[in-house]
Parts: sequence; C-alpha cells; structure tokens
Amino acid sequence: MTPLDNPKKAGDQATPLSAASKLFPPATRFMRLKGDYGQRDFVMYRGGRLPEVFVAYETWGELSPAKDNVILLFTGLSPSAHARSSDADPTPGWWEYMIGPGKALDTSRYCVVCVNSLGSCFGSTSPSSLRPETAKAYGTDFPELSMEDIAKAAHHTLHEAGIERAHAVVGASMGGMSALAYALQYGDEVDGLILVSSACRALPFTIAVRSLQREIIRCDPLWKGGFYEFDKQPVQGMLLARKLALMSYRAGEEWLTRFNRARIDPDKRGDGLFDMEFEIESYLDYNAHKFVRGFDANSYLYLSHAMDTFDIADHGGSVNAGLVKVHTRRNLIIGVKSDILFPVEQQEEIARGLDKTGHSVEFHALDSIHGHDSFLIDDGKFAPLIKNFFAD
Amino acid sequence: MTPLDNPKKAGDQATPLSAASKLFPPATRFMRLKGDYGQRDFVMYRGGRLPEVFVAYETWGELSPAKDNVILLFTGLSPSAHARSSDADPTPGWWEYMIGPGKALDTSRYCVVCVNSLGSCFGSTSPSSLRPETAKAYGTDFPELSMEDIAKAAHHTLHEAGIERAHAVVGASMGGMSALAYALQYGDEVDGLILVSSACRALPFTIAVRSLQREIIRCDPLWKGGFYEFDKQPVQGMLLARKLALMSYRAGEEWLTRFNRARIDPDKRGDGLFDMEFEIESYLDYNAHKFVRGFDANSYLYLSHAMDTFDIADHGGSVNAGLVKVHTRRNLIIGVKSDILFPVEQQEEIARGLDKTGHSVEFHALDSIHGHDSFLIDDGKFAPLIKNFFAD
Repeated sequence: MTPLDNPKKAGDQATPLSAASKLFPPATRFMRLKGDYGQRDFVMYRGGRLPEVFVAYETWGELSPAKDNVILLFTGLSPSAHARSSDADPTPGWWEYMIGPGKALDTSRYCVVCVNSLGSCFGSTSPSSLRPETAKAYGTDFPELSMEDIAKAAHHTLHEAGIERAHAVVGASMGGMSALAYALQYGDEVDGLILVSSACRALPFTIAVRSLQREIIRCDPLWKGGFYEFDKQPVQGMLLARKLALMSYRAGEEWLTRFNRARIDPDKRGDGLFDMEFEIESYLDYNAHKFVRGFDANSYLYLSHAMDTFDIADHGGSVNAGLVKVHTRRNLIIGVKSDILFPVEQQEEIARGLDKTGHSVEFHALDSIHGHDSFLIDDGKFAPLIKNFFAD
Repeated sequence: MTPLDNPKKAGDQATPLSAASKLFPPATRFMRLKGDYGQRDFVMYRGGRLPEVFVAYETWGELSPAKDNVILLFTGLSPSAHARSSDADPTPGWWEYMIGPGKALDTSRYCVVCVNSLGSCFGSTSPSSLRPETAKAYGTDFPELSMEDIAKAAHHTLHEAGIERAHAVVGASMGGMSALAYALQYGDEVDGLILVSSACRALPFTIAVRSLQREIIRCDPLWKGGFYEFDKQPVQGMLLARKLALMSYRAGEEWLTRFNRARIDPDKRGDGLFDMEFEIESYLDYNAHKFVRGFDANSYLYLSHAMDTFDIADHGGSVNAGLVKVHTRRNLIIGVKSDILFPVEQQEEIARGLDKTGHSVEFHALDSIHGHDSFLIDDGKFAPLIKNFFAD
C-alpha cells in the first residue's frame, strides 16, 4: 500500500459524482484536490474555475520511504488510468507490456502512477461530472480545458500524497503533451522526461483531422449543444468521428499488408449498394463501436480541443524558447516514421529544442508499420529504449 | 465546328432531363447514346441498364477531316466537362493551363474532348436524371456505376460522332481510372495514354477515406436513402464529407507553410468553445461550402463508390495480368510524392506493369507540396511532361 492508496483525510475518500461512473475501471482510486495554493477552487489555465476536482488514478509498485521513486504516467486521449492489470483489476491495461516487475517501467523499483486526465470520463472531473452546486452534469458549461490543466491536476495529486518530486514523467500521444506541460510548469520537480509520438504543438493537418471529428460529433442532433443525458450519447457522430480518428492512428502500409482489398463475407453484408463491402470498412466499424460504448462525447470534444490549442510557444514566445524552459536533466524522445498524426519531424523538433538546454537528450525515430499507435503494439521496439533510460 | 458539335439526328439534339440541369455549365453539349451495339439500353458493367444515356461534353480545337486528332479527357470526381474557357463559357476551366493553342494539350493540332463522367451531375445521365418512364429522378434506383461504364459512355460518344480512334486518352485522379478502363476495353482504338495521380485499384486507406465520406453523407437525415428533392440536398453531410476529402487531397507540408497555427480574426469567430479558431478550419469550411453549392450528393456517392470497386485485377486475375491487356503504344504515367490518397507507388505500379507489355512507358515521380491536387496547381511541373509527350 502506498500513501496514494490512502487519502489523507476523511473527505478525500469520497468518490466523485459523475454520470460516467459506470465507466470507471474497478481498480480506480480517487484523489480529491484541495484546489490551488491558497484558493478554494481549481483555477483553469485559460479561465474559469472548478469548485471541486477529483483525479482518478491507479498505481503499481511500492512508494519508497523517501517518496522519491514515482514515475508519473499520462495517457493518450482514449484510455483510462488502467495502464496495467492488477489484483483489483486483472484485465490487461493499455500499456500492459511496458509496466511491471522487471519491465521497462519496473514496478520492483518504481511506483508507477497513471492518472486519468482531467476532463476525461474515467473518474477524473470532467464535463460528465455532476456540479456540486446543481448535482447536474457540467456539459459544455465545463470550462475550457488545456494540457496545462491536465498537468496541474496530476501535479496536485502527487502533492496531496506528499510526493514532491517525480523520478520521471512519461507520456505518449496526448499524454506526451501533458507530460511536456508538466515539465514546463514543474520542471524543478522532475528528473526525467519521456515523450513518445507526441508534439509540442499540433500541425494544421492534425488540427484539421481533430476539428472535423469534433464538428461531426457536434452535428449529431443528439449532442444537443453538449447538454445530453449521459445515457443518450450522440453515438452516430461519435462512431463517424472515431473512424476518422482510427484512420489517423494507423498507417496505410499496415492496412495494405493486413487487408488490401479483401471483401467481407457476402452473407454478412447488407444489401444496400453503399453498405460495407471491404474488410477495412468492417475493421473500422468494429473498432469504432468498441470505443463508443465506453466514452463520453463531451470528454472527447474537450480533450481533442485541448490538444489543438496546446502550444509550447505560448510559454516563451517561440517553440525553442518554450523548450528551453523544460529543464529536466534527462530526456528521451521517441517517434515513429509512419506516424501521420504526430509526424516524426515533431519529435525531432522537441529533441533539437531540448538539446539546446544542455541537458541530456536521446532521440529515436523508429521504423514501424503501425503509425501513431505503434507504442501500443510494438513492444519490442519501445520497451528496450525505455528500459535502458531507467537502467542508466 | 466539329461533328461533335452537331448531333447527327434530330433526336440527338434533345437535352437530358435532369433535376441538376441548373448545374450544367453554359458551354455544355450533349450526345444521346444509341445504347449498346444491337441493344436499346446501355448495359451497366456490374448489372442493370439505363434506357437513355446522355453524355455531356465540351470540345476545344478542330476535328481533322480524317477524325484522327482527338484527345479524350476524363475528369476527376468533382469537375464538369468545362476543362477550359471558350467563347461560349469564358470562365476558367478546371485544367485551364493545360489546354489551348500551343499548350500541352494543343488545340491548334488536336481536338480535345472532355466528357462529364456518366453518373456525374453536370449533364451526363446520373442519379439526378429523370427516368424516362416516370419523369422522376433515379435516386438510388440508379444502377451500380463502375469506371468501365464511364469509359464506355465516353467511347460511345466518340463513335456517335464518327470518331473511331483516339490519338490519346488522358485522365487525372478518378479520370485516370476512367482512362485506364478505356484503354483496357478499347485498347485497339487508342494510341497514347496519359495517367496522372491515378491508380489501377484503390488502397485500403483510400477506401477508408472515401467510405467514411459516403457514410457521413448517408447519415444525414436529409439524404433519405437517396430519394431527396434535388433542392433539398443533405448539405451538412456533404460539407463534412467534403472536408475529409479536402484533407486527403492536400499535403500536410503545404498547410504548414501556408497556415501553420494562424488564428482566425477573433471578430469573425463564433463564441462557442468549439467554433472555428484556426485558419486551417476556415479554409476547409470555405472550400467545402463552395463545393457543396454545386454538387449532387447521390452523384458523389456513386462516383466515390465506383473508384473503390474499380480493380484492374478484375480484368485478368491480377494487377499485372490486367495491365498487360492495356496495349496502348505510348504511355505517360505521372505521380506526386506527397500524394496520400493515390500514393506515388501506385503510379509506379502501373508504369512497371505497362512496361512488361513491351510498349513505351515514361514514368515521372514529381516533387510538389500540393499532394493529390498538384496536377490542378503545379502547371510548371505537369505541362512540360505532357507537352513533350505530344511533341514526340
């Protein structure tokens, strides 16, 4: 048991009121934040306040007596804090291969803490949380979310548990943006930084891909401006948006190898001219349905939008001026050459910028046919690099 | 005046009945086809028949007395047959820079005939045409469309005008697929073939991009299974679909150079959190609206679907067996390295396959930041190659 398992005060043991509570994985734990230093509310980076903030998290490994062995892990847009299986939740986590005793994130040495992002629907305060004042969901009255807020909520979570430094902060995809925002804001409290398939600000193509997803969801009449009943999600819009997302997560070469022009079994086809006909259509449909069963549309919109607006140049006037503010001693930056959403040039840009700080920077551009999602699949390529980072 | 301007029989001077008639460009001419040899109807490649087929076209340059100087031009998914301006329609055509006296498609030597694809809404028979039996639009009762049908309709158009050979058949994007289908079916009647940014069958990524566009349109309640009033188009679905299409037509590098993260003038923004904020969003919105004002949703669905189902391997059992059936003497294949929709490997595949026929094949992989749309923009890169092809 680590202090993270034991909220320090009775009040902290409360669980958040959220319409999404049935989505919380069984091992989810909650930290109620006390608000910003000297303030009752959690003040959002771009304006607005939250009177109550819970952060959902899971942990693996023991916290050292000196509380100096925490690896803080941020997630991408879609997953919960369930990054690895445990006794409390034996289902595989989203980064199962990466975390565990003797694994790259070695739980026999480190206490790995994965936080559910502020704004996500898996336990942290989000648009589906019930406002304390009204006991109704925020919907789009939730204030604008930024990567800086996600980082701050995680930071305050560690501090609530008495942890004043992180041995490393790790994130992939959106999680890398959160980790970068963390290192920017709390650089003195972090020793190592690992960013995988991430960026210090979104490219216009990536903004276009995500903006269209958001527009598709907002066009679904069931979205209702964000004030829908949680059980009446704008499912059709979410399905279409998720298909577009999936197209940006994978790479054409993988699909060529895996599906090429294979057809669906004719017995399983609809009889409309435009019904699904190719395996690739069926693959996207299956995976979109799987996702939509477990995600809240407003969380999707807020997190997606936060990725577009995050810009390290806001912290100093230019990308490089922002990166210079990241003074983690050791940095590992990994990208994948087939990534079309966060192209490898973006990881190289981070590595080059951090290199100017004079700190240690290791950069790897990996070959993989799995595109942006490679870090979820190609264990043999990612795990050794991260294991090696902690072995040094 | 060429015979193409003068339908040979009184009946041929009729213009097609179509709900889309207001979309026809002013210089549009029409050829009523007599149906397939020995049959009254136009028999579709994948089944079904059309009792009446019109093909809309425009021409530039004089037909030679021997009728041996025709360059047949096919269009991509979106444009009409108005490829170049003329006295009858002085507005610039979609390939204005390519066609004219002394231009690459030299109208002082050749008679350039651009056909509106069967199934498109700019004058050729399409889902918005009125059925002769009912005087109502076909809607989705229109039979399945294929590239082979588009090629056949163009072929019969030339034959109706007494033209038995084409000096060259030219097409870019979908037009290249139509041109390839033409060369496959009527190879003995074609001397030269020019394919630009095209493919002999769609890749799974490309199918995914187009399939999702079709699904988005079909999800618009105004689509009504294809039986909507022409003036009540599923505009919202079309707008969203077109934005996705535009994302696949251009290249990330161009948008990075042109827009990067530039913001819209705050005075021109809506005040919703998810309203357009970046210039790239505004660019896509502007261009999607421009397109949607002039296109029929069902034509979009049929043409898009026909691109996905076209497969040269259907003509011989494999890609190479199909390409061997294309016995045009001289072939020019051009691709663009930044094209994500019809990647340059696909043009190389065609060139390699045609090379096995022993005929002349010239292949160029161009550098351009404009992606799939480069052929519409980069006159300096495309025109010299095509001019040179005809100079030989």
